[in-house]
Amino acid sequence: MSTASSLRILVTNDDGVHAAGIFALQQALSRAGHQVTVCAPDRPRSASGHSITLHKPLRLAEVALPDGTIAYAGSGTPADCVTLGVLDVLENKVDLVVSGINHGPNLGWDVTYSGTVSAAMEAIIIGIPAIAVSVANYAQNLHFDGAANFTATLAGRFADPQHKLPPATLLNVNAPDLPESEIKGVRLTTQGDRQYVDRLEKRHDPLGRAYYWLGGKLHDKEAAPGTDVKAVGEGYISVTPIHLDLTAHAFLRDLRSWNVEEERG
Amino acid sequence: MSTASSLRILVTNDDGVHAAGIFALQQALSRAGHQVTVCAPDRPRSASGHSITLHKPLRLAEVALPDGTIAYAGSGTPADCVTLGVLDVLENKVDLVVSGINHGPNLGWDVTYSGTVSAAMEAIIIGIPAIAVSVANYAQNLHFDGAANFTATLAGRFADPQHKLPPATLLNVNAPDLPESEIKGVRLTTQGDRQYVDRLEKRHDPLGRAYYWLGGKLHDKEAAPGTDVKAVGEGYISVTPIHLDLTAHAFLRDLRSWNVEEERG
Repeated sequence: MSTASSLRILVTNDDGVHAAGIFALQQALSRAGHQVTVCAPDRPRSASGHSITLHKPLRLAEVALPDGTIAYAGSGTPADCVTLGVLDVLENKVDLVVSGINHGPNLGWDVTYSGTVSAAMEAIIIGIPAIAVSVANYAQNLHFDGAANFTATLAGRFADPQHKLPPATLLNVNAPDLPESEIKGVRLTTQGDRQYVDRLEKRHDPLGRAYYWLGGKLHDKEAAPGTDVKAVGEGYISVTPIHLDLTAHAFLRDLRSWNVEEERG
Repeated sequence: MSTASSLRILVTNDDGVHAAGIFALQQALSRAGHQVTVCAPDRPRSASGHSITLHKPLRLAEVALPDGTIAYAGSGTPADCVTLGVLDVLENKVDLVVSGINHGPNLGWDVTYSGTVSAAMEAIIIGIPAIAVSVANYAQNLHFDGAANFTATLAGRFADPQHKLPPATLLNVNAPDLPESEIKGVRLTTQGDRQYVDRLEKRHDPLGRAYYWLGGKLHDKEAAPGTDVKAVGEGYISVTPIHLDLTAHAFLRDLRSWNVEEERG
């Protein structure tokens, strides 16, 4: 890392390099004195999950952000853009990857669908600490200031060598869509769940053939205490450490009673 | 569920409805007496992660499997095909979703990239128990028999109402690419990790412009005991329970020392 307080940060997202959220993030991190490079998908890639492009090659192009800063636009997924940004653009000289600010929440089970979180996953698989950050609303004009400024503060924590994430662990940040002055604070949280109803809608085209829209409304139930869903719902920024060990450790013991294990021959 | 031993099973995959692996799985589950319906992507969708299609509508078409059985081909991702298969084709009358047999391993951190595992994730989010199954080799002709027959046995366990998966938990099965008689047995495992080197290759097209291939070779290190990677490497079928709670619970306590939490105003 270059100095005690200035970090080399790669910024990416899943809404595309020209989204308002990534520019708000780039601006806040630059104002905080960090060396910020933007490398993000050349088009919106929401709900892309942790997909990577293996069947065709990728391209990388220079584009300008609204203030004239040069950024890099990749032809692949958010995870692809992290690989391109870290290994090619920045030649592995990166202290931190920050993905966002996503236009929309990444709470509960929805993190598995999230291109924003998956970009951060790719960073930690490469071995670089990462933060994913989202504003929890799908409205057209979002309040990015609170999320952007808090993320700049949180990124600054990584300048202290005592602050290390465990291997394959990232921080998932969600902010309520409120003016910064109305955000109630910051809470460390667990990942909750979010369940949907009416997930599939069948329609018919003018020729009478069926087609389907995915969708769904949030299940109307109380969020569990201590979760990201609960904190954001109450006007707080949530910070959830998430990792890539998906093993259901507690259930593994019960599973032994299924008598699945065997030695053959 | 229709009878004590015959389950209504939706079969899907990420290699596409015409892949050899899904047919081997459909055949083995049908031979075991289950009511099997295949609904899978209309084309290969490997490494698609847990992506879903929200920006365009989906189509569903009837196609024939090699033995003439009617199957359903969806225009979306593996997760989309689970939603279509469960909610439209089978009208939510499903006891179990089985995704596979994947042509290639889904071990360690790679499960987050996997379309095969993500299809199973979609099932458990909808509320249906699920198994993902893979043969751990990228060769052209794989040995599917061992994986297919073991999966039929494992699926049969779900006919016993005492065998319940916890909420949002699935079973991830990987088999070595060996003739069935050479498979050494079955082990319950934790999820290991798999790290890659040489992940990005830069080339130049005939016009001299750069393009990039993602790739990478497995890091040459010893697999940890008890993991899926270790078991499959030793010739065993691995069964790993994985869940959607990605919270790094153990680290959450340490994170409190970062003094991130605050109450404002």
